[in-house]
Amino acid sequence: GLPYQIAVIPGDGIGKEVMPEGLRVLRAAAARFGIALALREIEWASCDWYQVHGEMMPADWKAQLQGCDALLFGAVGWPATVPDHISLWGSLLKFRREFDQYINLRPARLFDGVPCPLVDRQGRPRQPGEIDMLIVRENTEGEYTNLGGVMFAGTEREFVIQESVYTRIGAERVLRYAFEQARQRRRRHLTVATKSNGIAISMPWWDALAAEVALDYPEVTVDRQHIDILTARFVLQPERFDVVVATNLFGDILSDLGPACTGTIGLAPSANLNPDRRFPSLFEPVHGSAPDIYGRNIANPIAMIWSAALLLDFLTRGEGAGRAAHDAILRAIEAVLREGPHTPDLGGDADTTRIGQAIAERV
Amino acid sequence: GLPYQIAVIPGDGIGKEVMPEGLRVLRAAAARFGIALALREIEWASCDWYQVHGEMMPADWKAQLQGCDALLFGAVGWPATVPDHISLWGSLLKFRREFDQYINLRPARLFDGVPCPLVDRQGRPRQPGEIDMLIVRENTEGEYTNLGGVMFAGTEREFVIQESVYTRIGAERVLRYAFEQARQRRRRHLTVATKSNGIAISMPWWDALAAEVALDYPEVTVDRQHIDILTARFVLQPERFDVVVATNLFGDILSDLGPACTGTIGLAPSANLNPDRRFPSLFEPVHGSAPDIYGRNIANPIAMIWSAALLLDFLTRGEGAGRAAHDAILRAIEAVLREGPHTPDLGGDADTTRIGQAIAERV
Ligand SMILES: CC(C)[C@H](C(=O)O)[C@@H](O)C(=O)O
Ligand SMILES: CC(C)[C@H](C(=O)O)[C@@H](O)C(=O)O
Repeated sequence: GLPYQIAVIPGDGIGKEVMPEGLRVLRAAAARFGIALALREIEWASCDWYQVHGEMMPADWKAQLQGCDALLFGAVGWPATVPDHISLWGSLLKFRREFDQYINLRPARLFDGVPCPLVDRQGRPRQPGEIDMLIVRENTEGEYTNLGGVMFAGTEREFVIQESVYTRIGAERVLRYAFEQARQRRRRHLTVATKSNGIAISMPWWDALAAEVALDYPEVTVDRQHIDILTARFVLQPERFDVVVATNLFGDILSDLGPACTGTIGLAPSANLNPDRRFPSLFEPVHGSAPDIYGRNIANPIAMIWSAALLLDFLTRGEGAGRAAHDAILRAIEAVLREGPHTPDLGGDADTTRIGQAIAERV
Repeated sequence: GLPYQIAVIPGDGIGKEVMPEGLRVLRAAAARFGIALALREIEWASCDWYQVHGEMMPADWKAQLQGCDALLFGAVGWPATVPDHISLWGSLLKFRREFDQYINLRPARLFDGVPCPLVDRQGRPRQPGEIDMLIVRENTEGEYTNLGGVMFAGTEREFVIQESVYTRIGAERVLRYAFEQARQRRRRHLTVATKSNGIAISMPWWDALAAEVALDYPEVTVDRQHIDILTARFVLQPERFDVVVATNLFGDILSDLGPACTGTIGLAPSANLNPDRRFPSLFEPVHGSAPDIYGRNIANPIAMIWSAALLLDFLTRGEGAGRAAHDAILRAIEAVLREGPHTPDLGGDADTTRIGQAIAERV
């Protein structure tokens, strides 16, 4: 068939270092499984570009991405030169919202070869298989808004209003998606993150909607947990979690904490999906641009590579080839994590390129 | 002098089980250090009372608490009969707000004898002393509001607005308080929790205010961290944290997660302070009413007892007796944690009463 059109956006910092490895593995897997890809590199949506143009993306960014099936995204943000709320709202968050990527899927799994920071109540190290969760994050609304403002600035009366906004359409579709995911998994368990005891308008509403949707999924067991105790349980009882559904902010928090509980956020991938396929979906590592380690080519590219695997799976869903390519990449990641080489974050001394090569060879 | 007036509010669930032990130790310490206390037990601010009266507190609750110096509080909430947002907004959150308890102080320390769920990068168990943080939480505004509402309910267009509100007065005083705390500690380090890359109005404002206040505290080192990566670092590098200052919601999350990183939230105390002393302050365990274990007298009362210690310290600040009483209680807690007896959450089979007795004896 026609090649899938993929826009490649390295972005900032280590995004530029891990992207070549993501592409290396993507190309290897596509070749092996006969998936035709047309890749196009984009240099905007980066703070370098902002420095020159005074904006994160060109005015015709949508037109330029016309016909794209997916965006492979590195990381964006360089706070030393551009404030985060400008760089992120001008790129990543714009994609999520304007391309209606309303599902952010974030798996967190403990792998053989990755030291886990957690032990169980008996002091035994957690074993691979004990932590295997999927965070389903609402990705377009909720707490992330630029609605509101400051009043009486500079006076004693100064105050700020920040709006969170939830729509029934937006909340219901992510809840349904999460129930569907839970239904397809072995344990069929869903945790709904909330904070209805403190956030008095939106969260009781969210709870009621979750209870309503749950009626359609009697085969899924559900528990509702306040975000505070939920974070505590990620640490104390991570084996309890299967699928976790959360608002934008709570999903953001849980999808850094979950991977941290598996040893590092350097491995965590994410899929920003528009399941309707009216717009391109976006695949990116959970880690950011990491200014502190940029420039030494030591960043772990596995999150980027795993994100590329999620891209192949999503793009060719139904065909089989994408799922096979995804699984082959995952097996290669598992093998390299188990046997090395490793980047410094995992105690090795291999560089970013070496890891990409090792995984590509196995694919 | 005149006795300090203390209102004792057991509340719901295990609040009713741990309170007698909190009082036992409070009385023992007050007797030993010559602190005169007048205690008065209150049965409202509980779901039992709600069941009978249809409200959480009597209309004249403020008048009834007139002249009180402090409230010793167990836990409130019994979701099987009263929704959390009703029970909490009708009691605890009302106290915090109407008594302007704008600081919520929540220490988290790793103790000898409490198994820690975390190991370091070398797989070594974390040692007492490695985790010793103080979370300073804004306690009256921010994300916890009942401003907003639902529109177009029951239709496709249904949406909800939830307001967060921050005032300069409210934010500045908690930031200053946190800097003061940091300045008095050995490491003089302050972490400011934020999410200015996603929450686009309030959080950049909060960051700017923190930077402004920081100018007055050149001896304190400051780092600003987004809440997502901050929760990850609690797990991966807890030794990095000293004082952490956060908004109401972020402080809520971090003050469950921090204690979880020290093995259990069953030990974590909290002080809801009105530092101006215009209104009574409130001292309570971080854990809730725990319906799942209520009725068996197995709850760990240490968080309640430690909260009582914070009460003595705050009440008699300046006098010395309160600080001495606080320290004596802390040493007794340390000894019992090290040598037993232990409640089931710490692997023992002692009941709630036994722990209270053991600590009171040592005091
Ligand atoms: C019960 C709840 C409203 C409360 C809060 O969120 O403040 C509790 O979690 C706490 O931390 O004291
Ligand atoms: C960079 C930031 C805006 C973003 C978010 O909060 O969504 C990131 O943390 C993520 O999780 O993708």
